[in-house]
Amino acid sequence: MNDVIKLINFSIQLDDMKKVLRQTQLIGSEQYEDDAQHSYHIASMAILMQKYAKQPIDLEKALTMLLFHDVVELKVGDTFCYDANGQNGKFEREHEAAKSLYGQLPTDIGDKLLRLWLEFEERETPEAKFANALDRAQPIFNNYYGGGGSWKRHGVRYSQVLRRIDPVQDGCPELYSAILALVDDAVAKKWIIDDTE
Amino acid sequence: MNDVIKLINFSIQLDDMKKVLRQTQLIGSEQYEDDAQHSYHIASMAILMQKYAKQPIDLEKALTMLLFHDVVELKVGDTFCYDANGQNGKFEREHEAAKSLYGQLPTDIGDKLLRLWLEFEERETPEAKFANALDRAQPIFNNYYGGGGSWKRHGVRYSQVLRRIDPVQDGCPELYSAILALVDDAVAKKWIIDDTE
Repeated sequence: MNDVIKLINFSIQLDDMKKVLRQTQLIGSEQYEDDAQHSYHIASMAILMQKYAKQPIDLEKALTMLLFHDVVELKVGDTFCYDANGQNGKFEREHEAAKSLYGQLPTDIGDKLLRLWLEFEERETPEAKFANALDRAQPIFNNYYGGGGSWKRHGVRYSQVLRRIDPVQDGCPELYSAILALVDDAVAKKWIIDDTE
Repeated sequence: MNDVIKLINFSIQLDDMKKVLRQTQLIGSEQYEDDAQHSYHIASMAILMQKYAKQPIDLEKALTMLLFHDVVELKVGDTFCYDANGQNGKFEREHEAAKSLYGQLPTDIGDKLLRLWLEFEERETPEAKFANALDRAQPIFNNYYGGGGSWKRHGVRYSQVLRRIDPVQDGCPELYSAILALVDDAVAKKWIIDDTE
């Protein structure tokens, strides 16, 4: 199979990202968000917020990470971030999926996407920190402006949310301040269980 | 209002892109595609196909165009590409929407996004040609692999499709060859009306 055909077949396969559902709902709607919508949202936020990354970033690299980090879910589905059992073996499952999926691509681009997927997971480079910050912040907006969303539905606790958003400080401090204010207000509104007293 | 608040408010508003429906359907599904999904799909394709742009491109610029060119539809909705009446005044309506929406942003990023929206519409730079090629090619895949999709539903003619995809040649020739083969086969299958005899 020649390279162009491999790239086009992969492009067509990405249509299925529109059918992988997450726990987040659209604001003002019962509709569950899918991976394509989520990836779109955080990539667009990266363009808007680039000046506020904690360290200078290569935006093209951050966008590539954001658009492709969830493609592994074509094989393994979405794992809810507050599902402790689901987190067991998540990295290994997704790593296998990444190797298998990106292995369908021409070697140069396939290797690059696999490397960026790992870099995103490791959260060590400026781009990975910034990208992770956006990935963790966006559902906070949807839960808050959707009236509690997956926090209420799953009985999520304050300490869990604080742990989840902690890395946002390291990627985009202004965004962290903004979402922390929403999380605190969600605790006051009893959309999040206060377990810190 | 400070710049960070403007950026965050705009980020939240982008959630509504997930509710602007297009005429395209997801492959193997009755579900209509929304603007967030479409923008995700063509931005991801830009990353995959970058080597095949007809002229060298600045990928970051092309991605910014692709992720933001349809944001005007938050105000004016999607116009079906084969709706001749809808095309009347489309540029003016969307230009007003772009000025209004991007005017909500801090000046530096707002001006940049308005400029890139215009550049996309004018189809003169390498990035605009490449971005337009992807924007026009992706629905071909969805219609073809969805068994005819909006072509069948709206009685679309071969000459209309050829005119619509013509600029793809100028942005990504390999992609043009691939979609032309699908379009020709769709004519043979009678999913597109043959009006060229």
